[in-house]
Amino acid sequence: MEPDLSIVLLKGVSCEVKKNVLIIGAGGVAQVVAHKAAMSNDALGDIHIASRTVDKCHQIVQSVLEKRSLKMPGVLQAHQLDALDIAATKALIEKTRAQIVINVGSAFINMSVLEACMQTGAAYIDTAIHEDPKKICETPPWYGNYEWKRAELCEKRGITAILGAGFDPGVVNSYAALAAEQYFDTIESIDIIDVNAGSHGKYFATNFDPEINFREFTGRVWSWQDRQWTQNQMFEVKRTDDLPVVGEQTTYMTGHDEIHSLSKNLDVPNIRFWMGFGERYINVFTVLKNLGLLSEQPITTAEGQEVVPLKVVKAVLPDPSSLAPDYSGKTCIGDLVKGTKDGVEREVFIYNVADHEESYGEVGSQAISYTAGVPPVAAALLIANGKWDVKRMANIEELTPQPFIELLDGMGLPTRIRDENGDRALTIETPEPAAAKAKLAMAH
Amino acid sequence: MEPDLSIVLLKGVSCEVKKNVLIIGAGGVAQVVAHKAAMSNDALGDIHIASRTVDKCHQIVQSVLEKRSLKMPGVLQAHQLDALDIAATKALIEKTRAQIVINVGSAFINMSVLEACMQTGAAYIDTAIHEDPKKICETPPWYGNYEWKRAELCEKRGITAILGAGFDPGVVNSYAALAAEQYFDTIESIDIIDVNAGSHGKYFATNFDPEINFREFTGRVWSWQDRQWTQNQMFEVKRTDDLPVVGEQTTYMTGHDEIHSLSKNLDVPNIRFWMGFGERYINVFTVLKNLGLLSEQPITTAEGQEVVPLKVVKAVLPDPSSLAPDYSGKTCIGDLVKGTKDGVEREVFIYNVADHEESYGEVGSQAISYTAGVPPVAAALLIANGKWDVKRMANIEELTPQPFIELLDGMGLPTRIRDENGDRALTIETPEPAAAKAKLAMAH
Repeated sequence: MEPDLSIVLLKGVSCEVKKNVLIIGAGGVAQVVAHKAAMSNDALGDIHIASRTVDKCHQIVQSVLEKRSLKMPGVLQAHQLDALDIAATKALIEKTRAQIVINVGSAFINMSVLEACMQTGAAYIDTAIHEDPKKICETPPWYGNYEWKRAELCEKRGITAILGAGFDPGVVNSYAALAAEQYFDTIESIDIIDVNAGSHGKYFATNFDPEINFREFTGRVWSWQDRQWTQNQMFEVKRTDDLPVVGEQTTYMTGHDEIHSLSKNLDVPNIRFWMGFGERYINVFTVLKNLGLLSEQPITTAEGQEVVPLKVVKAVLPDPSSLAPDYSGKTCIGDLVKGTKDGVEREVFIYNVADHEESYGEVGSQAISYTAGVPPVAAALLIANGKWDVKRMANIEELTPQPFIELLDGMGLPTRIRDENGDRALTIETPEPAAAKAKLAMAH
Repeated sequence: MEPDLSIVLLKGVSCEVKKNVLIIGAGGVAQVVAHKAAMSNDALGDIHIASRTVDKCHQIVQSVLEKRSLKMPGVLQAHQLDALDIAATKALIEKTRAQIVINVGSAFINMSVLEACMQTGAAYIDTAIHEDPKKICETPPWYGNYEWKRAELCEKRGITAILGAGFDPGVVNSYAALAAEQYFDTIESIDIIDVNAGSHGKYFATNFDPEINFREFTGRVWSWQDRQWTQNQMFEVKRTDDLPVVGEQTTYMTGHDEIHSLSKNLDVPNIRFWMGFGERYINVFTVLKNLGLLSEQPITTAEGQEVVPLKVVKAVLPDPSSLAPDYSGKTCIGDLVKGTKDGVEREVFIYNVADHEESYGEVGSQAISYTAGVPPVAAALLIANGKWDVKRMANIEELTPQPFIELLDGMGLPTRIRDENGDRALTIETPEPAAAKAKLAMAH
């Protein structure tokens, strides 16, 4: 075996530019990550894609080549990997000399992939919180049950691990940090609103893995209100907003990853997440949930077969990546922030609007995958150029928001702002570093 | 082994009284059959109950003993049996010396139980058409695909096989035969209407085996119209009637067993079946069907497990027999017959109303099971006393209706009639045998 120079460099030198990306997962989000990483392969180096089903990786490679997404000639390779197998994951990181791992596989594999990164020194990025297949809606803060338990060791070993770097969680955390830094002195509430006003034309489908999708909503709804964890039932609390581009939309209070880090990292008494659901979704969800078909716990059929109902539901539903070609309409995701600035009460909505057809045209995925897949590549670029190579575990709101939001603007996810001065593109102002640091420190 | 006298008699003598009943199945209907057979064990002899799950048979035996349903001291015994195993079924018929087999097990076992009866000489009674687990809604007439293929051999061997002897099919076929004999010269249409206006208090449940229940409605709706088989979609055609006791009810045209024999045996151009469904049922059914969760064909999960979705749905739904204790309200099932008598057009509704709580009080099952379980015991009594021991295969409308309807009246299922003269208990008039025979013959 030839000596692995990159690993040697990684261990010994901290100022080198990190290169070579290993993408784990091969769904709709991974497709976007692969395209976007390929478009920046001058900065990111070799691109590797690994999944349990290697055929899906080959299809992504094929799509990247067909759409000529590689910025310059370079390595683009598919691998078979069971990412629950730490030794195999470690071996693949070493074999590919990947210094950045983007984990966009199932939420069940976070902890094993993180462990493999910690053993090799590679930087780790994911887009959703770790989940135990047998548990739903654990005690908040959810990060405290899994990822944060490794924070101390990450810092000790100088491992960069960026958690929740999709759109929500991810970009919305950065919007919150930016609001805290630039637009408010004190924040009373952050309401993260996620609306998909698009249409896939099917009777029913979920926009990402149905298993993960339903798991988000079958348990209790946790929100952060009056600086306390508050419980509600799904579809119990709703609101209606007149949103930019997508118009009047009803959204429902939902449990979501970002509440669990924002409530720790920002000094904000009320942080809630709201998701838009159509009547069809609510009806199908209600029927399936009431019948017990969304259960993650195995049941036994009359014939004695042991089956997890949720996995059967997943198997009969359309593959989310199959929806992209016929998807039309737009998404609108943003942070509605209320508080005071210079003694005056104000309300600011920082948001992005994405278009399903445009996303599909560019990278072969719909806008839900697009909004989730572009940000981790932006995070990878910020690790590669050192700006976010923080040598510790961090949620997005702990990292300087400006370069991230600026990068996203050029990568297809422009940020807009609506406040008392109207609705416009958000212009990045360089912050005063000392002031920003002081504000973040307040929450600790 | 001691010589089996009953079998010897059965083969050699045709006028002996048939005795000893073997009930196959141990669901809600079997529970009713066991109680009602026990109440007539002076005429029927030993009562045996066999099922794949012998525990369920023991529970039924326990219930019969607790409610003191046995008319006189006698044998009441539980057996384990896989009724798809013809040799095992034959052995159990011989061991129990059963001369009458009442098959109220799954619709998948009819042909194997019938075969075992044909091999032993025992009389056969069932309450629903045979089904192949892998097929739904086959070419009409459904009986032609399975049972009727054995009609010639039954006649040759002198086997009494009475098909579809529940309420619907069963009693409603007898109502149709009675209408043809006594109330009409020519019949234009028979609309069989089945309404359950009761409430089980659950979010959703089926009143009998969910697998069999859903299979009735996932395929095409076959009806007999203008002397032709006609196809519709489920929930495509509905009607609203003001029915006795249960009031105004909306019912939907549905495929059902009795249409497939009545259309052959009676000279009636229009025969349709209508079933009442609540909004909740229709919504749940529509969601499950559209998602593919009612499919009888196996699918493969992401983990590679092969599963039949319908069997998973069955496993998560309440056991129908668990509904009985809290069931309230009434059922109304009957035949709305239109035609002419003595040159005058008329319309007659012959029907029964049953009460869930009364049924539960008497035999520990709700009224759906009660209406299905009492008639096969009446049929068994008519075989035992020779009136229906016809030594061939027959659907109910081919057998003299009067003694059956009279027996049911005393067994808890009284018949009522509503016509131009009002609504009243139906009084059995002894028919003129020659006239009745002539009318039935017309259809052949």
